[in-house]
Amino acid sequence: MAVKIIDLKKSVFDDNNREADILRDELKAKGIFLLNVMSSPGSGKTTLLLETIALLKDDLRIGVMEADIDSAVDADKVAQTGVRTIQLHTGGMCHLDAGMTRQGLEDLGADDLVLVILENVGNLVCPAEFDTGASKSVMLLSVPEGDDKPLKYPLMFRVADALVISKMDCLDYFDFDVEALKERAQKLNPSIEIFELSAKTGLHMSQWTDWLRREVAAWKQTQLQSQEESI
Amino acid sequence: MAVKIIDLKKSVFDDNNREADILRDELKAKGIFLLNVMSSPGSGKTTLLLETIALLKDDLRIGVMEADIDSAVDADKVAQTGVRTIQLHTGGMCHLDAGMTRQGLEDLGADDLVLVILENVGNLVCPAEFDTGASKSVMLLSVPEGDDKPLKYPLMFRVADALVISKMDCLDYFDFDVEALKERAQKLNPSIEIFELSAKTGLHMSQWTDWLRREVAAWKQTQLQSQEESI
Repeated sequence: MAVKIIDLKKSVFDDNNREADILRDELKAKGIFLLNVMSSPGSGKTTLLLETIALLKDDLRIGVMEADIDSAVDADKVAQTGVRTIQLHTGGMCHLDAGMTRQGLEDLGADDLVLVILENVGNLVCPAEFDTGASKSVMLLSVPEGDDKPLKYPLMFRVADALVISKMDCLDYFDFDVEALKERAQKLNPSIEIFELSAKTGLHMSQWTDWLRREVAAWKQTQLQSQEESI
Repeated sequence: MAVKIIDLKKSVFDDNNREADILRDELKAKGIFLLNVMSSPGSGKTTLLLETIALLKDDLRIGVMEADIDSAVDADKVAQTGVRTIQLHTGGMCHLDAGMTRQGLEDLGADDLVLVILENVGNLVCPAEFDTGASKSVMLLSVPEGDDKPLKYPLMFRVADALVISKMDCLDYFDFDVEALKERAQKLNPSIEIFELSAKTGLHMSQWTDWLRREVAAWKQTQLQSQEESI
């Protein structure tokens, strides 16, 4: 079955931060955790998603929105896992904002889902500037990209709740200083959660999925609390 | 000696394509070849530059403009080769346009140079949309990024005159189909020149630098011809 492709319209909102907060609150009220996944092209976002879905799909109802400028190659791969998947086309834009994310959620049909994963456009600049309304944002940096990236793309490291250092299986092959990277990231964002993994080999994948399970559960917990308070 | 850092101002021109053509003509009249280098973050632009400079600097007067959102790590590295180098900061913008490139050239002091290399912001989206006024544009795609990138970022492959497939030394380590990539790139851009190299090991570097030498010479030749015609 071919994956549905949605052509997003440019949002009409002047204040994206406000729209993002409204969307986040709505998602919390519905008990939907939205994870925004960002990185450079080719850092391994789709591979991380495939392995994350394999580990979580028996326990959580998951949906995926793949955002790209063109093609549906990622959505086609993810759809093979059996989870509900759509491909979003950004009309040439280098990021998604909250209004575009809302359009995607409506087209996905997210109301019965517990975890929705948004794979943002591959880019370390623009997606950092636009809050999508996600519950949490994670960024990937792959070992072949180099440990100097926090110096050159600081905003991305500031806005991410978690940093996944991906392709750790090829650490011996590249001149990459994990401790230097962590220090640079933590200087920009002292509370950032850091995972060192390889989705290809499975290295430390459970540390990442355990964190994600906890975050989804905590999100659901605050939803239940606010429902009790309103009764 | 610390590298000069220039904070670029946003350009005021409505028609970037026109400004780019004017800049390109001015550079040709001065015999300056401007090479625009684009890729994702971490594809190896700076390493390619360092090795290219090492092979060409005895024969060509070279200058380098490093464009980044923040830091001067790349410019500091390139300056150690002894060629004239400045760091451009884009004020958060994800690309350079022709007006910003012109500012950079003025700050670099390019009039006595034969080859100016502009390392654009690491990004496969925005830099493809803005003509810098360069004589030629080259894009890098590194083996770890994957062979599907022409499908997802088609404009970059359309606007590039040359494609450097970088980090070829780690081809055995990744699931990367060189022929599939070349076919996808050529479908978007039949005349694109393709180089398969490793700046780290030196593999096929001379094919790339020979092409660049020929392009610089051809540019100079058309400058001389137009001077003769105007006499």
